[in-house]
Amino acid sequence: MRVEIVAVGTELLLGQIADTNGQWLGEQLAASGIDSHFHQVVGDNHARIVLAFQTALARSDAVIVCGGLGPTQDDITRDAIAEVADRPLELHEELVERIEQMFASRGRTMSENNRLQAMVPRGARIIDQTRGTAPGLICPVGNKVIYAVPGVPYEMTDMFERIILDDLRSRMAESEQGVIRSRVLRTWGTSESSLAEAVGPRFDAHEHSTTGLTVAFLASGIEGIKVRLTAKASDEAAAFALLDAEEQEVRRLIVEAFGDIIFGVDDETMEDAVAALLLARGWTLGVAESVTGGLIASRLVNVSGASAWFRGGIVSYASDIKFDLLGVKPGPVVSAEAAMAMATGVTKVLNSDVGLSVTGVAGPESQDGQRVGTVFVGVALPGSDAFAVALQLPGDRPRIRQYSAISALDALRRGLQS
Amino acid sequence: MRVEIVAVGTELLLGQIADTNGQWLGEQLAASGIDSHFHQVVGDNHARIVLAFQTALARSDAVIVCGGLGPTQDDITRDAIAEVADRPLELHEELVERIEQMFASRGRTMSENNRLQAMVPRGARIIDQTRGTAPGLICPVGNKVIYAVPGVPYEMTDMFERIILDDLRSRMAESEQGVIRSRVLRTWGTSESSLAEAVGPRFDAHEHSTTGLTVAFLASGIEGIKVRLTAKASDEAAAFALLDAEEQEVRRLIVEAFGDIIFGVDDETMEDAVAALLLARGWTLGVAESVTGGLIASRLVNVSGASAWFRGGIVSYASDIKFDLLGVKPGPVVSAEAAMAMATGVTKVLNSDVGLSVTGVAGPESQDGQRVGTVFVGVALPGSDAFAVALQLPGDRPRIRQYSAISALDALRRGLQS
Repeated sequence: MRVEIVAVGTELLLGQIADTNGQWLGEQLAASGIDSHFHQVVGDNHARIVLAFQTALARSDAVIVCGGLGPTQDDITRDAIAEVADRPLELHEELVERIEQMFASRGRTMSENNRLQAMVPRGARIIDQTRGTAPGLICPVGNKVIYAVPGVPYEMTDMFERIILDDLRSRMAESEQGVIRSRVLRTWGTSESSLAEAVGPRFDAHEHSTTGLTVAFLASGIEGIKVRLTAKASDEAAAFALLDAEEQEVRRLIVEAFGDIIFGVDDETMEDAVAALLLARGWTLGVAESVTGGLIASRLVNVSGASAWFRGGIVSYASDIKFDLLGVKPGPVVSAEAAMAMATGVTKVLNSDVGLSVTGVAGPESQDGQRVGTVFVGVALPGSDAFAVALQLPGDRPRIRQYSAISALDALRRGLQS
Repeated sequence: MRVEIVAVGTELLLGQIADTNGQWLGEQLAASGIDSHFHQVVGDNHARIVLAFQTALARSDAVIVCGGLGPTQDDITRDAIAEVADRPLELHEELVERIEQMFASRGRTMSENNRLQAMVPRGARIIDQTRGTAPGLICPVGNKVIYAVPGVPYEMTDMFERIILDDLRSRMAESEQGVIRSRVLRTWGTSESSLAEAVGPRFDAHEHSTTGLTVAFLASGIEGIKVRLTAKASDEAAAFALLDAEEQEVRRLIVEAFGDIIFGVDDETMEDAVAALLLARGWTLGVAESVTGGLIASRLVNVSGASAWFRGGIVSYASDIKFDLLGVKPGPVVSAEAAMAMATGVTKVLNSDVGLSVTGVAGPESQDGQRVGTVFVGVALPGSDAFAVALQLPGDRPRIRQYSAISALDALRRGLQS
């Protein structure tokens, strides 16, 4: 089963937005053991979309089309599919009603344009829209198939995970089947090449073997480096058994080389790890942020059930708020002392057990004689003195702020574990 | 002149890295008035790369290939070009020497592998490498042409800017030359379909005309809907004149239909708009956040120079922080009254001129008898009573929080403008 991804949108060709859908789908297909040999990007032009579909169908078994399902005049994916499949477009009355209801539930009236989104090539199956107004389509073309999904990532990923992946699997020959399962170990605090070197023995062990195991590294920017273990086996239990054994080996190598840098598995985020540790101890948390300006609090609030352990935060951007509200002693505010005072201060203002703070310089200018990228994290735990961690972070202003946020959470994680 | 971009690399298909080269080249070509109707991504496989080149040459006049010029066994772009162009690969002795010198100048010895990089299809022109070891190629195929550049962005951009762009221009017919310029109007507060309906007259005006203008819509999730105007003209001044006139028409239609929903142009964000209004009035801002948990503050801090007008924020996640620190009267905290009290309270705690607040229910559970998605924004401006805006937002927890943040900033923007 070879799947080709076709991203539709002139804005992609013009480079105004990146084709993140192609990347995401490529990753998902690979993780599921489905081949994808070609991706295409094409603009909002009927003849060219048709040509792209024909090209894709000639060299692949299935096509996933992203984009061009909106309600406006330049959304022409439906027409192009109808032409390539040689099926008429028909108005699907039930879909019209569903779209009308979606608008009604938000207190709005459906515009006439949205009726376009209810046009369906005859014989195509509909993928229910749960997150937007555009339904997806599954349209057979001879013994091949075109899947159409909206270009909005949030809607596309939902349809792929909920419907398309299973549909693709059901079309795969038995010989191709078998299951592929992955596990991701998430690390923070070292480089991809260092990790690759440390895990090298496992990498080599698999290269010339038929164990069905692979190890790969995925640099994920501000979320650290992911180590992805993938196992192909006849069934799920066998795949998980391979993964369990491999995880043990890989963890051992990583911990030997770098210590406690694995903060989560699969979708676990750094804030999930912190939340679990706080819950286990029955402690509440307050944060005081300067350079991160609310990024840490906003990551923590994203954890469902945060109210059980998260008290709140103070964004002390102006220096006098650090002095007056948090009780930092007047003086340089980008310092280990200020970070520790902020962490202790916020526990008092917000009445929390634990305090976490960040102060630093994100640029463009240096501050207090500290160069851009200098960041101090403060951690105050019950029953012991506050401590600070000094960091020198790379990148521009947004990047330094993001790195500061995850570094601070990591410092708290390590503090809570020790 | 239609240029197709082909990115070579299995890591792109697997989604391990994003095809940023395609995006960058698309942007450069558009800015130079050169059409690019298709992009492809293909893995490191000889037969498939050949097929991708043949496909590209059949529907485009020139192909820019990125990647596969390195010194290892999976760098096979050179062989594929030789096959498609039906020219033998020959060792280019001068190139070998140049690569040897590059290694020597870094105190290293060239490995045998690197001789591969000196293989050139007969008759192809070499693009000197100034930043890496891989030279680029300009290889004629009939009356068309393939440009090959390394996949490393830093090397690719240099070769494109230094050699390829001029070479492409020299191949263009005089009638084709010209520039393309775009302008984006950013809106918040209506749907893509409603916007398309309102701006419909302009869309229709361009569809069957030769003015060189197009209007397109781009749903950008939590950042609202973008309206993109694109003009093709003989030179930059003419393109900007077309854009200026068109912007006036489009703005008029949008304002007539929806009022003040255009918050920015091109890269201007909602927080940039708020920052400009605060600076103009000489006012400082403090924010009190519950459901958004720091998202608003963190967006504001991302504006360079925020310290001139941003005081800080209180993330009052636990209810008693709203009561004790912000002076909200005990009672339901998801209400217009609580939002107004938070906005007024934060101006006192942080000593700011203006206060902005958000309280609401992001789920998964309802709260205070309010259903998930119910959000109240409070705005306190100097010299007048605080006011509140009630919202009902769609989506899951992260989405409701993101929508709440930009909605709150929009409410403040409107308040500051009136």
